[in-house]
Amino acid sequence: MSWLALLDFGSVLIFALTGALVASRAQMDPVGFLFIACLTAMGGGTLRDVLLDRNPVFWIAQPTYIAVACGAAIVVFFTAHLLESRLRTLVWLDSFALAIAVPAGAGVALDLGAPAPIVVLMGMITGCMGGLMRDVVVGDVPVVLKQGELYVSAAFGGALALWVTSTYVATGLPALAAGAGITWILRAGSLAFGWQLPTYRSTPPKS
Amino acid sequence: MSWLALLDFGSVLIFALTGALVASRAQMDPVGFLFIACLTAMGGGTLRDVLLDRNPVFWIAQPTYIAVACGAAIVVFFTAHLLESRLRTLVWLDSFALAIAVPAGAGVALDLGAPAPIVVLMGMITGCMGGLMRDVVVGDVPVVLKQGELYVSAAFGGALALWVTSTYVATGLPALAAGAGITWILRAGSLAFGWQLPTYRSTPPKS
Amino acid sequence: MSWLALLDFGSVLIFALTGALVASRAQMDPVGFLFIACLTAMGGGTLRDVLLDRNPVFWIAQPTYIAVACGAAIVVFFTAHLLESRLRTLVWLDSFALAIAVPAGAGVALDLGAPAPIVVLMGMITGCMGGLMRDVVVGDVPVVLKQGELYVSAAFGGALALWVTSTYVATGLPALAAGAGITWILRAGSLAFGWQLPTYRSTPPKS
Repeated sequence: MSWLALLDFGSVLIFALTGALVASRAQMDPVGFLFIACLTAMGGGTLRDVLLDRNPVFWIAQPTYIAVACGAAIVVFFTAHLLESRLRTLVWLDSFALAIAVPAGAGVALDLGAPAPIVVLMGMITGCMGGLMRDVVVGDVPVVLKQGELYVSAAFGGALALWVTSTYVATGLPALAAGAGITWILRAGSLAFGWQLPTYRSTPPKS
Repeated sequence: MSWLALLDFGSVLIFALTGALVASRAQMDPVGFLFIACLTAMGGGTLRDVLLDRNPVFWIAQPTYIAVACGAAIVVFFTAHLLESRLRTLVWLDSFALAIAVPAGAGVALDLGAPAPIVVLMGMITGCMGGLMRDVVVGDVPVVLKQGELYVSAAFGGALALWVTSTYVATGLPALAAGAGITWILRAGSLAFGWQLPTYRSTPPKS
Repeated sequence: MSWLALLDFGSVLIFALTGALVASRAQMDPVGFLFIACLTAMGGGTLRDVLLDRNPVFWIAQPTYIAVACGAAIVVFFTAHLLESRLRTLVWLDSFALAIAVPAGAGVALDLGAPAPIVVLMGMITGCMGGLMRDVVVGDVPVVLKQGELYVSAAFGGALALWVTSTYVATGLPALAAGAGITWILRAGSLAFGWQLPTYRSTPPKS
């Protein structure tokens, strides 16, 4: 299996765990767990494949992905009550999923010979869109948009690091590792130490 | 016309009615009725066609579907006030639309030679996604996610029944009928008698 | 550059401005500005291209579009506080973006030889969907659905005008101008003078 396929598996697995945790917080039935887990796990990569016109979509080509997502959902259904804090687990798992999905998306675009902006955007889309769909469908405030946290920015940084590494240093594993590492460090730094970019604060609007 | 095309017509017609009922509850103007009716009627099937890379998308190949959806929206615009309870009508119509759309989606995947998990997922996507888009866009709690009701589960059961029937009994009409029947029985049983799967109930979370 | 490409650029630019204004109202960080600006600017056209199976999607073929959207987001980040009323600016900018995106979408479908209903629908989808995604993701009430305003209806009128003009009068610039003009007049008339279609008002529902 290629490194890219392995990354896809990893991101499907971990995003599925986050989806199932969200389902547990919304007190769904088992099929609801499967549904949200699959949507979260495969949403970002599906959008990447549809936009890049990769046929067939990765989980249609290889239904094992679906089994992985469903397995993760079932494990969470039976074990979520053991967690000290589901929200905390969710947020940290989500950071790992993001860090794996960003290079999975950017790497695919790079392999297809896409130019730099497309590579970076595909990394961001693959990383952020699954979680965004999860939160919009369940009606939560999207993690993507939480004020004062690096999330899209972490994905942007990681995808950029991947492109820079593969262009100036080495392609393959080093570039993928750089992408994953930078994404996770930025996201984890934001969660643990409150790293953030300056947000927009206007003077109070006049109307 | 093939059975599959007929199912597509039926699901477009009935989902359009549910979309227009939602538009009436949101007090939209006639074009809003058309918009929500078309989104609901064609959303699920469009997603199926894009994911399976069927070209062109069914309503682009055959614009009659659009006329059907628009006709349904107009009828509802002029008659919705005659209904005893629009919410009740909506929920029951939606159950018929689901029961028709699930075999319409799974049947297409089966015809393309997709493996079992893809057949089942396409049935679920085609059945559930139109209504999900309808509810997310209007800002309602998605019917798909109502706690303690079978919906995604009904779609899952129906799509599975279709696959089992077509693999072990007979393809074509019997399989489609099994898919529609099981989906509707599960959904209707949930609405009428409160059938449900056990939902996730944790001990109160510690944080 | 063709007129259609020019329209795509114009609609990307103005929709990106509206997206960034929404990001400023939600007090996001700079990368959040870029994200919402790109989503709004390219969402409608992307959906059009995926549905019509145009490959590659317009901003993948020509990444300059991404630069335009990002430039617009950055300008807004540094100047939004200068505006008297960001909401008012947003609504009016959005009316121009709609008026440009509708002929951009309908014109592409016409060039591909699509029949009238598809031309009209592609105009409506391209015009309305970017703004809809923007509002759904941020959690605002979609502008598309505001009661008592022409929006989808303006897009419908403009797309229809484009089709009628190109079929009975002249193709190319006159048809595009008719589409843009009618869309904007209807939308602006609704904003400035309260033009509207009769909305659905039932007798109070019995349940």
